[in-house]
Amino acid sequence: MATLPKALTELIEALGQLPGVGPRSAERYAYFLLKVSKDKSIKLSNALERLHSGVKTCPKTFALIDADQEVSPLYDDNDRDKTIVALVADAFDIIALEKTSLYRGTYHVLGGLISPIDGIGPEQLHIPELKKRIKEDGVKEIILATNASVEGETTALYIQQELEKIDDLKITRLARGLPIGVDLEYADQITLGRALEGRQSL
Amino acid sequence: MATLPKALTELIEALGQLPGVGPRSAERYAYFLLKVSKDKSIKLSNALERLHSGVKTCPKTFALIDADQEVSPLYDDNDRDKTIVALVADAFDIIALEKTSLYRGTYHVLGGLISPIDGIGPEQLHIPELKKRIKEDGVKEIILATNASVEGETTALYIQQELEKIDDLKITRLARGLPIGVDLEYADQITLGRALEGRQSL
Repeated sequence: MATLPKALTELIEALGQLPGVGPRSAERYAYFLLKVSKDKSIKLSNALERLHSGVKTCPKTFALIDADQEVSPLYDDNDRDKTIVALVADAFDIIALEKTSLYRGTYHVLGGLISPIDGIGPEQLHIPELKKRIKEDGVKEIILATNASVEGETTALYIQQELEKIDDLKITRLARGLPIGVDLEYADQITLGRALEGRQSL
Repeated sequence: MATLPKALTELIEALGQLPGVGPRSAERYAYFLLKVSKDKSIKLSNALERLHSGVKTCPKTFALIDADQEVSPLYDDNDRDKTIVALVADAFDIIALEKTSLYRGTYHVLGGLISPIDGIGPEQLHIPELKKRIKEDGVKEIILATNASVEGETTALYIQQELEKIDDLKITRLARGLPIGVDLEYADQITLGRALEGRQSL
């Protein structure tokens, strides 16, 4: 016999499909939506309904854009320097870089990282489109802004090798080193090693 | 300038309203729903839409039931003993007790626990309805199945005092003691104290 109403069981199941949400969390969310706020669940329902029709991928940079936009505003804007391109694994990495307010170049989303375990090879990444942009926009610098993980480093190395034949193209990558606010004694040895290798003269 | 499409920002905001979901988790869920599966977001959207119209509260037990049900099937069923009532704080506690498959009585949901800090007094709990059930159904045993927390114990004590005037009504509560699989040396001292007090002869 069902101990919960069907509508609630279905919601718990649907919420349980989200990454990292177990049955207990799904129950908690469902209970909250049921008990605390009808408005919130209607708002969430509408947002979900509009999600796929409201979002598309920029054909140039592969960033996520509004369905009625042609290309990413982060590319289209005249204030952004099209000759500098930060290469990121996925569209959400752009948010992190934009939050620094320090970057005035453009972005290119690879759409993943090379990972043989997950069956992702370089041919699945948006590398041909990047090469096209380099030619068309006269790109002068590619910033490899992939994660400091094995997959991120592998992908960065692969792309470096792919692009180093191109004349007058500077390839850089985000600095590795001590995170701000972290004591030297608490830094892991790999990070500390990289910080030492990449030491800067003052 | 917006770094994310509006439809996505709205979804992240709506997901961020769920209890314990921070902006990073909300982003991860939204990205998952966008990238991994359109079906899943439609399913979740529909489940949310149907939630409030599909669920109501049982007028007898205050359990959650389907909108088209009269009373809770856990009350209505002839196999359930209406003379035994387990008193729980909220509707979700029923799931936990049902999972044991050991209980054949019925339930009564209090709708909360007495908590002066949260402004919840006994008058907000479904105690009058419980008294009515005791009379109408000839209830013989009330099992106090509230949490082993301060609020749970306070509520249990209050209800015990309210009901002990009623003739021929046995009031019991869930045993406190060592959780199964836990080593004695790792049990906290309050639990161990309760286990000692409630020791059973063999």
